[in-house]
Amino acid sequence: MLNPIDPIRSVPTFAEVAAAADRLQGRVVRTPVLRSARLDARTGRRVFFKCENLQQVGAFKYRGALNALLHRQASGAAPGLVATHSSGNHGAALARAARELGWDCAVVVPRDTSPAKLANIRAQGVEPLLCEPGLAAREAATSRLIAERGAELVHPFDDARVIAGQGTAALELLAEVPQLDVLSAPVGGGGLLGGSALAARAMAPECRVIGVEPELADDAARSFRGGERVGFATPPPTLADGLRGSIGALPFELFRSHVDDVLTVSERAIVAAMRVMLEECCLLIEPSSAVPVAALLEGRLGAPGEAVGIILSGGNVDLSVCPFLAGRTAS
Amino acid sequence: MLNPIDPIRSVPTFAEVAAAADRLQGRVVRTPVLRSARLDARTGRRVFFKCENLQQVGAFKYRGALNALLHRQASGAAPGLVATHSSGNHGAALARAARELGWDCAVVVPRDTSPAKLANIRAQGVEPLLCEPGLAAREAATSRLIAERGAELVHPFDDARVIAGQGTAALELLAEVPQLDVLSAPVGGGGLLGGSALAARAMAPECRVIGVEPELADDAARSFRGGERVGFATPPPTLADGLRGSIGALPFELFRSHVDDVLTVSERAIVAAMRVMLEECCLLIEPSSAVPVAALLEGRLGAPGEAVGIILSGGNVDLSVCPFLAGRTAS
Repeated sequence: MLNPIDPIRSVPTFAEVAAAADRLQGRVVRTPVLRSARLDARTGRRVFFKCENLQQVGAFKYRGALNALLHRQASGAAPGLVATHSSGNHGAALARAARELGWDCAVVVPRDTSPAKLANIRAQGVEPLLCEPGLAAREAATSRLIAERGAELVHPFDDARVIAGQGTAALELLAEVPQLDVLSAPVGGGGLLGGSALAARAMAPECRVIGVEPELADDAARSFRGGERVGFATPPPTLADGLRGSIGALPFELFRSHVDDVLTVSERAIVAAMRVMLEECCLLIEPSSAVPVAALLEGRLGAPGEAVGIILSGGNVDLSVCPFLAGRTAS
Repeated sequence: MLNPIDPIRSVPTFAEVAAAADRLQGRVVRTPVLRSARLDARTGRRVFFKCENLQQVGAFKYRGALNALLHRQASGAAPGLVATHSSGNHGAALARAARELGWDCAVVVPRDTSPAKLANIRAQGVEPLLCEPGLAAREAATSRLIAERGAELVHPFDDARVIAGQGTAALELLAEVPQLDVLSAPVGGGGLLGGSALAARAMAPECRVIGVEPELADDAARSFRGGERVGFATPPPTLADGLRGSIGALPFELFRSHVDDVLTVSERAIVAAMRVMLEECCLLIEPSSAVPVAALLEGRLGAPGEAVGIILSGGNVDLSVCPFLAGRTAS
């Protein structure tokens, strides 16, 4: 007898993205796809923004977290304790999903997590557990939780259910704009771009799928080019706080088979892109979301006249530490 | 023989809003209607934002200006010179509409117009003509233009074609969300709320139509209560730079027959509302647009559980002078 496929540790397929979309229907915000005449004129492209900054908890992460718990529930599990580690958005998302479905939730976050993201987790009724920055410390603290309290892990990106859930944003975007020439998203652990690539390959086979990450956190670009997964021992000091982690094993498999390229952009370009999005498109996006926008503004996503889709991954920004606002806000 | 109805100086009807919607179809952005789970939770209402900050030139004003020129064109006029006075957004809108249709355009703006709005006019290829602040100076400078250069006036709000065009935002909102209990918009000259009221009365007769203006610029509220149109001799010093003008004669007639109430809010509440929209909804709106949001946050629009529609009128903000960012930005 064959072993059943592990629903968490196997590389997901498009069928799982489609199943996630069915599961999430009516439970997540079908976020708007926005365009900007100003940005189209500036870039010479037709740009389509999938606004996951307007998703529940202000980030696409809610899709993957909720899909994981709904999948668990459908497999007959009684509600218990779920745990994760997170730079902030996945933690808030899992806390929210757990509350929706009657699970308890524990979230480990590094001490340098932004105040806005800590507040976002607390707003879901969960007090974040602080650890030292870096994947090793995060995993150690989470492992302790799992051992001591019998929690189930919902990993922020190395989980097929999570990746499939993240792919539903691209699925919705491609259902609305089937003729995309390029689809792009930021790359941290790689769950969003991996899930997006599954949707693109199935729904728009000609569409190029391009990940973008900060130069300071270029592990996915180096892994992609070198054919071997590399990571950072200590988190790189990019402003894009959601992208400080290294690419996961499952996402890396998806990158190898379904992703066309991984680009990198400078910190200065990330800040400039945030400001352009705010001033020209009236949209507040977090630094991590500005990373593909930065590549677009540098003319590196698509060719003139092409249709470029970008997933704006989140909008949880502390105005008081927003880089181009010089850290000065008044109440 | 009866005189034909003056298409500019008569009080418009819903038929003219509907005709404007046909005329503008495919020429203006059908702006998205956005919701925010966070804001719904905070206010206890179901709130629907019609995002005219994402309209061409960043404001609803493009609807009215383009409708006026299209109407003129349909009546057989050859392209010539159009002129107007404006606190900024109507000027950019008319300049843009003129460029679209091959007219020349001249725009008079007061010296205290915000740099973002001046830049927005210049971006349409028109150099704004500066005058002293106040309606008298604006009208005098515009009259000179008309006399000297044979320009045709497209008034920012006292023009039936302009009011009908502005009403198309509410028409689109009500087509998408027919069950609104309350529809609200900011009030400056009153063209937006007047046109919106026409749409609401025809499409959702039970919907209450409520204007909101700054306490410092409460001419419409006083006019509405007193039954007689009053105005300001000098422009009031509200942050809501789009609402410093006084209510027009045609809008006032629409207010008397179709508007349920006009509320006022403090400057502090306007600033707080801008910040809430940015932090909780990821949307940058200009102070004028924050005025009805301020009334909502004070619990004064609709009752708990009701559906409240708000037209976010524009998003042209100077980040460098944004009040809650304390005037400090870095590049």
